Amino acid sequence: MSKKIYSIGIDYGSASCRVILLDTENGEIVGEGACKYPSGTNGVMVDSTNPHLARQYPGDYLYSLEIAAKEAIVGAKDNKLDLDCIVGIGVDATASTPMPVNQYLTPLAFEERFKGNLNAQAWMWKDHTSYKEAKDLTTLAAEKYPEFLEMCGGDYSSEWYWAKIWHCLNIDEEVFNAAHTWIELSDYVPMVLCGIEDLSKLTRNKCAAGHKCLHSDRWNGIPENNFWNKLDFRLNRIAKTFGTNLGSVESVIGELSEEWAKKLGLPVGIPIAAGSIDAHVGAIGAGIQEGTMVKIIGTSTCDIMVQSLDKKMEYIQGVSGIASESVLPGAWGIEGGQSAVGDLLNWYITKVLKGDGSLHGELTDEAKKLRVGESGLLALDWNNGNRNILGDSNLSGLILGQSLLTTQAEIYRALIEATAYGARRILDQISEYGVNVDKVVACGGITKKNELFMQIYADVLQRPIYVSKSLETVALGAALFGAFAAKKGEKGFETLQEVQGRVCKLEEKYFKPESNAVKIYKELYEIFCQLHDAFGKEGESADLYSVMKELINLKNSVISNNEA
Amino acid sequence: MSKKIYSIGIDYGSASCRVILLDTENGEIVGEGACKYPSGTNGVMVDSTNPHLARQYPGDYLYSLEIAAKEAIVGAKDNKLDLDCIVGIGVDATASTPMPVNQYLTPLAFEERFKGNLNAQAWMWKDHTSYKEAKDLTTLAAEKYPEFLEMCGGDYSSEWYWAKIWHCLNIDEEVFNAAHTWIELSDYVPMVLCGIEDLSKLTRNKCAAGHKCLHSDRWNGIPENNFWNKLDFRLNRIAKTFGTNLGSVESVIGELSEEWAKKLGLPVGIPIAAGSIDAHVGAIGAGIQEGTMVKIIGTSTCDIMVQSLDKKMEYIQGVSGIASESVLPGAWGIEGGQSAVGDLLNWYITKVLKGDGSLHGELTDEAKKLRVGESGLLALDWNNGNRNILGDSNLSGLILGQSLLTTQAEIYRALIEATAYGARRILDQISEYGVNVDKVVACGGITKKNELFMQIYADVLQRPIYVSKSLETVALGAALFGAFAAKKGEKGFETLQEVQGRVCKLEEKYFKPESNAVKIYKELYEIFCQLHDAFGKEGESADLYSVMKELINLKNSVISNNEA
Repeated sequence: MSKKIYSIGIDYGSASCRVILLDTENGEIVGEGACKYPSGTNGVMVDSTNPHLARQYPGDYLYSLEIAAKEAIVGAKDNKLDLDCIVGIGVDATASTPMPVNQYLTPLAFEERFKGNLNAQAWMWKDHTSYKEAKDLTTLAAEKYPEFLEMCGGDYSSEWYWAKIWHCLNIDEEVFNAAHTWIELSDYVPMVLCGIEDLSKLTRNKCAAGHKCLHSDRWNGIPENNFWNKLDFRLNRIAKTFGTNLGSVESVIGELSEEWAKKLGLPVGIPIAAGSIDAHVGAIGAGIQEGTMVKIIGTSTCDIMVQSLDKKMEYIQGVSGIASESVLPGAWGIEGGQSAVGDLLNWYITKVLKGDGSLHGELTDEAKKLRVGESGLLALDWNNGNRNILGDSNLSGLILGQSLLTTQAEIYRALIEATAYGARRILDQISEYGVNVDKVVACGGITKKNELFMQIYADVLQRPIYVSKSLETVALGAALFGAFAAKKGEKGFETLQEVQGRVCKLEEKYFKPESNAVKIYKELYEIFCQLHDAFGKEGESADLYSVMKELINLKNSVISNNEA
Repeated sequence: MSKKIYSIGIDYGSASCRVILLDTENGEIVGEGACKYPSGTNGVMVDSTNPHLARQYPGDYLYSLEIAAKEAIVGAKDNKLDLDCIVGIGVDATASTPMPVNQYLTPLAFEERFKGNLNAQAWMWKDHTSYKEAKDLTTLAAEKYPEFLEMCGGDYSSEWYWAKIWHCLNIDEEVFNAAHTWIELSDYVPMVLCGIEDLSKLTRNKCAAGHKCLHSDRWNGIPENNFWNKLDFRLNRIAKTFGTNLGSVESVIGELSEEWAKKLGLPVGIPIAAGSIDAHVGAIGAGIQEGTMVKIIGTSTCDIMVQSLDKKMEYIQGVSGIASESVLPGAWGIEGGQSAVGDLLNWYITKVLKGDGSLHGELTDEAKKLRVGESGLLALDWNNGNRNILGDSNLSGLILGQSLLTTQAEIYRALIEATAYGARRILDQISEYGVNVDKVVACGGITKKNELFMQIYADVLQRPIYVSKSLETVALGAALFGAFAAKKGEKGFETLQEVQGRVCKLEEKYFKPESNAVKIYKELYEIFCQLHDAFGKEGESADLYSVMKELINLKNSVISNNEA
């Protein structure tokens, strides 16, 4: 029997860093660790006067990595693992989460003068403070450079790199001027692990560079001077630091430095793969293939699909990212998503009901007893704006249909349903553009904890929903990448898809659409679409008189069907 | 000094019976008692499968009266009151709250065979089960008998007498057939106190008979056979029992019977005035006069205005009741209202937050700290439908503008504001039809307990809001009526207005509109009207794309103004 091959996956989520040690033969996770970011509220620095703001302290990323990695390695050592069998390290992170750094690539947040300055921190993906800049960038691009928008569904998002940098320039020139460049979190950590402190040696990952940073081979990198001059000439300086040194999902960007080898208790020199976006990597870990949509359901949701490069890939109105080989080699990667899913339920539990985590379970149990349609409620899942298919963070939540008997649990269920309708809207949109989705594979904590949530998704999406066996598909994908990049080119080494097929497993139990629920949800989804378009689409004239009446009728018919 | 004159006011609210003993010289309440209805939830029998249903057990009315009256009289006796100085008894009740009775005018609910049958109980004003019948009656009347609708704002309500009786016929023929007639609660109690058990001796009050029972001098009573035949010929039988024996607000309908004198510990033979609707009587107790709107704010709200009979009184689209002398002699009485005000806040506290009464105070304190517009929220107050100006119970609640930081208290405040916008919509409508409102007098418990609520109303209505000194304006008005009806015609007896001027007092403190709040609420109210018309008016085509954006802009400008 040949020597085992292990790899390390490091996954940066919204609130914590998770690290796993993967047996690449059988997909077994032989060690794992996790550590929450210590700063802010659940790791996020917020501003009570500005709901759009979400920042993170870069030091948290390093602190949490050290603790999580040690935990994983100590756990693995107990299994008498030979550390020399670790062939690679893969890193993924949320995106776009850029941070301003100085000429030594050290975050400005570490400098005394910027201590506590929110603008010097990492600008988390869900930070929407730059909604105005995103809109202005979109407007300009639509007029003069429409090709820039084709890869991002027609709208450049306030969640992305350039909108954030531009907003920083507009509100905090001191930080903007002090920044030598801005680095995505998914590039920052691999770079730190390799000990890179010089911009000329930095490799940025293609995955985040794609639509988020406006990088494309079609215009040989990032947009040229003319474009930036039209926004604000001072952006040129940052644009010039983006560089051309890009790594694909199969690249090794360096080796584990002495400093970090010591910190983590690992051998020096382990190859470090180029970083990647958490969702893309999670899709790999969940076993993505053509015809399957992988939904990574967390605080927000990412939907990932792939389609062979042989097929003509059209621009999909309202779907945020399409990039060549961003997920799997040889395929278009298509990325959609919703800005608030777990976050929406958490908002209701913690901010409205002032409850703790246990209330999720209680309300789910109560909500499970409700029949589809009987609450008469309908909600929009826009508390954090709409990422797809409207691409508009300047929207807000809506709940309607309340009577004087509407309960706590009915509202909870309506919020779950709202996220399912939002998911369906994305699925419908990409289907319309010719991308086929036969089945859905879901991953993320909620897929294991909340059967009601999963069943509602099966009924609303009208498709079987499978659940990824591992709770750590993202970290698992990162580990796979790490091993693959490191071993690529070695004689006899398989393709990524081959490893994936062996390592990525699904739960036996899956969720089947139930015909009666499908029927009623179809009606509710139509009303959802009416509200979606009325509040979300410019120049749309809507007749909403029937909305409340249809919901009441539906409610009455559900109740009387049950009594009959 | 002449002998003192006292009278008794009996007030039937939604959850309890209150009784006062009034010194008609100075308005002092010398004895008072109250008793909650023991059945159901807060006195209301509900059906968890049908949010429209709200019934009450008629026995509760008699049980609570006995306890409350004894409490008031025992209290008064301590003050060495001479019971012979009690010159009259006035009764008011919620309306339309009709109940089916047998040939001896005994409620069917008291019969063994109908025990526990929800349809044999009193159908409480806020019961909306007959929304379909109300709509059909309105449609027929609009086509063939438009004059019937002129007195009720163009829509016959599901809260009213005939819609309820017709619905009973449609769902429970046994009860319908067993009913000899249906009697309003405001007629039932005076009748019981007088010991009347014969339909030919029953006097119904004009106040409830007006638009609610479709009674008018214009068609000599209630509509004729043709009308009922077009709805359901079997309604003719009940219509025939309505009779022509009607009492005005100044009529005595009988004297206190021996049985009830004994039960209450009062002398036999005290004159009993014709009943009246709680809101009308409350307006008297609050000192209504031309140019003043009296708002009786409780679980729901009633708005009462008067206008001299000399002035031409037009039909007011969407305002539910206009009747000659229904409030004050010599004046048109105009009645509007909202279906849920206190009920809306109670719903949020008890059903959504599962809190108790003390949470009202906590959330009010928190909500007080918020600046107008900073939550970005906007709500419609339709959880119990819209009484005015849409006259449509087939509507539901709506809240929009939520972010992931929206708080419990922000939603509470948005609900208060929603009721204020609803109030403004009514005020605007009647103003448009030429009824002048210079000031507003509010009464009800909330006016003493919640200064934030009152200030929001002053700011939204853009008028000073005065507060009635007495918490018992309704019972006080009933007592005034009782004395007035009994003493009318006696030599030297004054007009009702004279007594009213002496007895009805206002708090010194009143609420002045604050200019900055007025300005922002004006903007919010405009958005409210957009939503109101979009969801509430048939055939209205709405462009709602700007709604969320305007709320977010307003929120941002409030926040940045504060920071500057």
